[in-house]
Amino acid sequence: MKLSLERVALIIGAPAPENSLFEVSGINNLKDASINEISFAISEKYIKLLSKTNAGAVIINKKLKDYSPCNCLIVDDAYLAFAKLSHHFKEHQSIISEKEICKFIDISLKVKGVSISSGCFLGKNVNIGTNTKIGSNCTIEDNVTIGSNSVIESNVTIQKGCLIGDKCMISPGVVIGSEGFGNVRDSNNKWTSIAHLGNASIGNNVSIGANTTIDRGTISNTEIHDGVKIDNLVHIAHNVIIGKDTAIAAKTGIAGTTVIGKRCMIGGAVGIVDHLKIVDDVVINATSTVNRDISKPGMYTGFVPLMLHSEWKKVSIWLTKLDKIAAFMKIKLKNIR
Amino acid sequence: MKLSLERVALIIGAPAPENSLFEVSGINNLKDASINEISFAISEKYIKLLSKTNAGAVIINKKLKDYSPCNCLIVDDAYLAFAKLSHHFKEHQSIISEKEICKFIDISLKVKGVSISSGCFLGKNVNIGTNTKIGSNCTIEDNVTIGSNSVIESNVTIQKGCLIGDKCMISPGVVIGSEGFGNVRDSNNKWTSIAHLGNASIGNNVSIGANTTIDRGTISNTEIHDGVKIDNLVHIAHNVIIGKDTAIAAKTGIAGTTVIGKRCMIGGAVGIVDHLKIVDDVVINATSTVNRDISKPGMYTGFVPLMLHSEWKKVSIWLTKLDKIAAFMKIKLKNIR
Amino acid sequence: MKLSLERVALIIGAPAPENSLFEVSGINNLKDASINEISFAISEKYIKLLSKTNAGAVIINKKLKDYSPCNCLIVDDAYLAFAKLSHHFKEHQSIISEKEICKFIDISLKVKGVSISSGCFLGKNVNIGTNTKIGSNCTIEDNVTIGSNSVIESNVTIQKGCLIGDKCMISPGVVIGSEGFGNVRDSNNKWTSIAHLGNASIGNNVSIGANTTIDRGTISNTEIHDGVKIDNLVHIAHNVIIGKDTAIAAKTGIAGTTVIGKRCMIGGAVGIVDHLKIVDDVVINATSTVNRDISKPGMYTGFVPLMLHSEWKKVSIWLTKLDKIAAFMKIKLKNIR
Repeated sequence: MKLSLERVALIIGAPAPENSLFEVSGINNLKDASINEISFAISEKYIKLLSKTNAGAVIINKKLKDYSPCNCLIVDDAYLAFAKLSHHFKEHQSIISEKEICKFIDISLKVKGVSISSGCFLGKNVNIGTNTKIGSNCTIEDNVTIGSNSVIESNVTIQKGCLIGDKCMISPGVVIGSEGFGNVRDSNNKWTSIAHLGNASIGNNVSIGANTTIDRGTISNTEIHDGVKIDNLVHIAHNVIIGKDTAIAAKTGIAGTTVIGKRCMIGGAVGIVDHLKIVDDVVINATSTVNRDISKPGMYTGFVPLMLHSEWKKVSIWLTKLDKIAAFMKIKLKNIR
Repeated sequence: MKLSLERVALIIGAPAPENSLFEVSGINNLKDASINEISFAISEKYIKLLSKTNAGAVIINKKLKDYSPCNCLIVDDAYLAFAKLSHHFKEHQSIISEKEICKFIDISLKVKGVSISSGCFLGKNVNIGTNTKIGSNCTIEDNVTIGSNSVIESNVTIQKGCLIGDKCMISPGVVIGSEGFGNVRDSNNKWTSIAHLGNASIGNNVSIGANTTIDRGTISNTEIHDGVKIDNLVHIAHNVIIGKDTAIAAKTGIAGTTVIGKRCMIGGAVGIVDHLKIVDDVVINATSTVNRDISKPGMYTGFVPLMLHSEWKKVSIWLTKLDKIAAFMKIKLKNIR
Repeated sequence: MKLSLERVALIIGAPAPENSLFEVSGINNLKDASINEISFAISEKYIKLLSKTNAGAVIINKKLKDYSPCNCLIVDDAYLAFAKLSHHFKEHQSIISEKEICKFIDISLKVKGVSISSGCFLGKNVNIGTNTKIGSNCTIEDNVTIGSNSVIESNVTIQKGCLIGDKCMISPGVVIGSEGFGNVRDSNNKWTSIAHLGNASIGNNVSIGANTTIDRGTISNTEIHDGVKIDNLVHIAHNVIIGKDTAIAAKTGIAGTTVIGKRCMIGGAVGIVDHLKIVDDVVINATSTVNRDISKPGMYTGFVPLMLHSEWKKVSIWLTKLDKIAAFMKIKLKNIR
């Protein structure tokens, strides 16, 4: 897929740039973009990167126009423009026609020794390693690579370009490589979704529980490193990175771009917000909310202990007034530290 | 499906009414029911509606018998009777026989330009708009309508009669139109489930994340309005209404009949209880519990900040005794407001 | 599957025992093991059971060697050895070859009157009762038994050996019998997963909501008793037992080996930790964390009420310092009880 800058300008609602016949074949961030890719700059934080980028073209916010390199498209909201443009570099699941119905359960794959059960859909250029088993009714989209000695159970969807390592165990109903939840609001409060162009990359010896979902990255990949164990109904958002040998219990959710260290143990139903860093060897107890970086190993907790409802009713009234109790009692934070 | 009142009486365990050959073809609430439908009245709150209903028949609790219109079935528990009767107006997925295996991946749909991947099941009277793509192994049940330019990814189930608009993006593993969780307890503490007869209706430009579930309504529809963005593993219960351009992050659950306004932003893993009203432009931070109506726009939060477990152990002892601390310190609520 | 003790010793890294040609055909706990099964003892708590077991062989921790019966394999970590060995008694979904594609939608089942929709995978020795309906694209693995008059909706996976009763309603996307989340850490902090050899057993009149997951047991079964109603996106871990007529709302998670009584009502998004006992007739309000046994019927709650974010910021500072507030005010626990 190649787009001329003239076409890009039309898509994002920018004036056509000088070199309007110049073509780009992908989007990337300023740091990693090559000459045949387009990038974008949203705020003053991007000025330094703008001066160093190898991108063939950039979309920039109006107020950054003095910092524009050549091949520049100027808009009011470069992030919104990026969102609009992203969809033009995205392909959805390719279609196997009626005549091919038998082909997709055929075992004529590149590597011998792969077992594929009935009802599976296999896209183009799928690579599966020796002794890997694919259960019934799975969808393995174009350009997916799965290592050897892995078990993919039934009804699993692995979307375009995702990578699964060796000796993995993927339980039924898992979705790997689903769209990330990235949306940009325009001035009318309407959302434009970002088409996620990165992949999800799963290491070796990883197990993933039933109906868990792992989103693909926005531009770079979501990464699950070797030896990670993930339970059922877990949500792992775009660009999350989970370090080696970390275990995550059921119903936990990890929001976008959060990075979790090695050998962590994360309890069930934990909520971890976006853009956090959690170091190695952290233990988080079940149902806690993680709303800040964790820079020291240790065990962390945060929830309300269970009470009889009649007691909770009395307690909860005071719970919402703790600052006022402190003020009334003339307690100052500095006095109790 | 038509049932005589004689048959209805038998199903719900009521004495046969006078006009026992009168036939009804559906259940509806008192306000909306027409002459060929049956309705029900559970408590004194229904007396006014009883006097105005156009329903052809009503099931009423014994204590309301003085308010009964004609064609009345009297029972001890009209809600339980409704639950029992509801199943007789419910049909489950119809079956495509072995011979039809190829038919369901055929592209002989009413509207041209639809792409359907292999392994899909298509029920009767399915309408799909131009340029919509259906991924592999989807189930699209009878009487479903999907607009144009939508993408339905693999392994999606859209149950009977549900509506999907234009330009929607439905991720893998999504279930739309599943049974609501409505159950009525009888005097022996056994549950009778309610067969949910409403649909789920999804507007235009809606995106729904992987493995999210949206239940159908009990009698009227569950509604997701235009421009709503929903992340992965979200649960939306029966008769919930989500206003235009609201965004809902992963792992959030919204319980039955709650109505959420326009342009709201609901963080991940939020729990919203049933029968609430939340106005437009409300922001709810991740992992909060919403246990009351929200009548003013603004940002809302409620969770315990993360602590070292050793600290939480000390804090949590006092957390459950806040009312007793206040009493000991002789603090009165009126003094700290 | 039979393994000689010589082979077992090789798998778990133990010295070969005397009677190395003795064969075992399964793993079981000390109490229930028979002469042709192997068992394991992890700690001093197992000493009494060791003296009474009928197991044909046992794997025991080095420090328990004085208590070893005959046919004993001695290792540093018997639980890790059990995890390693468990995979040798586990079979994954069997494969239906291309030629059999039509067989799996055939209705030639043992019991007449079963309706099976297209795209289903049926393993060997599947038993389905009269008048049960199986929706499209389901996977029913080897040795599964489903009772009569049940409805299995589309895209459901029921894994090997699981049992479903009569008059059940299983919603789309449900996974029954997925691997439990049991992993054992070795001395290098690497996880070895336990292959779960128990089943999941679902009683009569049970309904299970969309995309809910119910794991199989480690050795004995996970059990959902008659009349239980489970909503969408619920997680039920290995060896959980749910008593008769209990209802569980959406997004709740119940961790391993927890036992819940009869007629309980568990709200949405509740988190219940592992190895707990909850008696009959307990009500738990939505979004509560259950971190201790519940020995008395009643209604229980535990969460932070919603506040304006600006208020929560002030309150939450004090929330993490409750113990210090108490110390500063010279309040003692004994004084406020």
